Amino acid sequence: MKIQAEWMRGGTSKCWVFESAQLEKTQASPDVLLPRLFGSPDHRQIDGVGGATSTTSKAMILHRPQAGDVDVEFTFAQVGIEEAAVDWGSNCGNCSAVVGLYAIEKGWVVPRGDVTRIVTRNTNTGQIIIQRIATPDAGLPAEPLAEMPGVPFPGHQVGLGFLDPAGKTTGRLLPSGAATDALTVGGTTWNVSMVDAGAPVVIIRAEDLGLDPEAYESWFGGVELLLQTLERIRRQAAVRMGLAATAGEAARAIPKVAIVAPPPSTDQGSDVGIMMLSMGKPHPALAITGSIALTLAARTPGTVMHRFLGGFASPTLRLRTPAGVIETWSEERDGSLLVGVDRTARTIASTTIHLPETLDIKAPKAGASLAGATR
Amino acid sequence: MKIQAEWMRGGTSKCWVFESAQLEKTQASPDVLLPRLFGSPDHRQIDGVGGATSTTSKAMILHRPQAGDVDVEFTFAQVGIEEAAVDWGSNCGNCSAVVGLYAIEKGWVVPRGDVTRIVTRNTNTGQIIIQRIATPDAGLPAEPLAEMPGVPFPGHQVGLGFLDPAGKTTGRLLPSGAATDALTVGGTTWNVSMVDAGAPVVIIRAEDLGLDPEAYESWFGGVELLLQTLERIRRQAAVRMGLAATAGEAARAIPKVAIVAPPPSTDQGSDVGIMMLSMGKPHPALAITGSIALTLAARTPGTVMHRFLGGFASPTLRLRTPAGVIETWSEERDGSLLVGVDRTARTIASTTIHLPETLDIKAPKAGASLAGATR
Repeated sequence: MKIQAEWMRGGTSKCWVFESAQLEKTQASPDVLLPRLFGSPDHRQIDGVGGATSTTSKAMILHRPQAGDVDVEFTFAQVGIEEAAVDWGSNCGNCSAVVGLYAIEKGWVVPRGDVTRIVTRNTNTGQIIIQRIATPDAGLPAEPLAEMPGVPFPGHQVGLGFLDPAGKTTGRLLPSGAATDALTVGGTTWNVSMVDAGAPVVIIRAEDLGLDPEAYESWFGGVELLLQTLERIRRQAAVRMGLAATAGEAARAIPKVAIVAPPPSTDQGSDVGIMMLSMGKPHPALAITGSIALTLAARTPGTVMHRFLGGFASPTLRLRTPAGVIETWSEERDGSLLVGVDRTARTIASTTIHLPETLDIKAPKAGASLAGATR
Repeated sequence: MKIQAEWMRGGTSKCWVFESAQLEKTQASPDVLLPRLFGSPDHRQIDGVGGATSTTSKAMILHRPQAGDVDVEFTFAQVGIEEAAVDWGSNCGNCSAVVGLYAIEKGWVVPRGDVTRIVTRNTNTGQIIIQRIATPDAGLPAEPLAEMPGVPFPGHQVGLGFLDPAGKTTGRLLPSGAATDALTVGGTTWNVSMVDAGAPVVIIRAEDLGLDPEAYESWFGGVELLLQTLERIRRQAAVRMGLAATAGEAARAIPKVAIVAPPPSTDQGSDVGIMMLSMGKPHPALAITGSIALTLAARTPGTVMHRFLGGFASPTLRLRTPAGVIETWSEERDGSLLVGVDRTARTIASTTIHLPETLDIKAPKAGASLAGATR
């Protein structure tokens, strides 16, 4: 059996893009089909299209709704590498950046004006993402030239606007009801802000942790104790945000922790320094979802972030991360808030994936529908 | 510009397979074109088809000769990852296994009988490789089922026979003229065999190095001194084999070093234990070229290997490596010797790679011909 797919770069990820009908025609559950196409389980994914790293073992499943305001619905799948399993639990901001470009390249959306607007909806989270793609002279440039940090080659300019992103996980921007809360861990009281926008995030000041903002890169040089303290703060925050009944039951992935600091004194190009923790470790950059949460926090009076910035009214926020500056933007219109970041995207290859027919694929969950598998 | 390519697994490698005309039509030098298609320079190859590891950043360029006995000529390209450069200096045994399968799938060779024979020639080394592919009922099985160590999924069975592999680098099977030589390093005399077949290899007995064959896995546990001694032996051998004028000038990649030992007493499934050193480090398995050299050595009276095995007359040789047993086979016919191994291969995807037109690609070496670049 042959399956059509586009291989696209979205931001700093490589993403395999399938139209839902291409997967459904195999009559196999995507929980079984995607790992086989990717070559999982195998730490090298040597017999499939997966790239054997978390940022290159990703799939996007696209679908055109029959009616309504949404141009494209999409489901993100994090395909396991050593495990033949798929995680449907979250969206990927980087892969999101391929959806609008795909729609234009396939003729689903006709470019209009210098910037074409595509309304997309992520089914993992229910988040509407308005995509704005540079289409000078009402077309995609033959030679895309937009650059972004972390990618050495240019691509098409894509603005990703998260529509009213607050409360997608817990129902509220401030799940505890307060802009700042005091958490007591190890006899010490910590003032933190807990926000839910893009992803649930706990925000704490570097100064409160005794970290020197001028020595940003050295914060985690062997400071195991600091990581342990932050993990305990994170677990208490999980309870306060209603994400877990007890600290012991808190999930590993959420909430995330963000440490905020003044940018280094030599840095004129950013508003705030950010170090994010993900899965218990310092993140080399900043997930797009995390940047959305920090932007909402910056806009909300009373949060650690808002006070830290001395109030905030700018339409853009420049976040200094270990990997460079990430700029977010915010727009209010017609009672809605759009918060976003700019990425680049490009189609690497148009492909037909060969699926050798084996019993392994058809047996376990044959007939399960995509909609069911992806909630 | 769009470039057709098949993405194939050959043995334990993933290989991008191009017909030479597809690359030539770009009018760009493959030294510039291939790195751009693969996304190099970038340690993640995030904007191209490369897999960011040495075994997944490989290209094969295929060409059908107009006349003669060779069905397919092929050139192997090791595409740099952090460097925008291509290494044309050697062949890849694993990627070689895709050539015959490609020829059948594209209709270049019509399957005949249960096993179809394809004559291929590698242009990097001049080596003729006779490929034999399982074609039951004169066709490729729809669901290939051949297994091999190191690959968790099945593929098509491919026998790779190296035709008269002796002396491809130095002109002689025994470049020093002797089956065994004494090399003096650090006041100690070492009896080694130096053979050139597939690749130049120096063979030395584990016993001479004071290594316990029953504790195979522990040989290199922190034994920096042992590696230094072997490196000095290797460099002397390079001079004796005519590969370098002085020990100091010896190349890093050749000759390779093979340590031979009796298989562990609990192992009934192999003839000899092998530990190969590659680029100064113990190799986790055994390159195909190295297995060819060891097989020729086993067949040659007077070598360390031949004496070690107490003579050798079997058509197969089972080499125990850290990654499992590799079996080679030998056939003599019509005055020629065919030495080979079996692999599996499979087409992962048929693709059209999108090449964004940029000046970087066309400028540096535009117009250089493939033939010129690959010697």
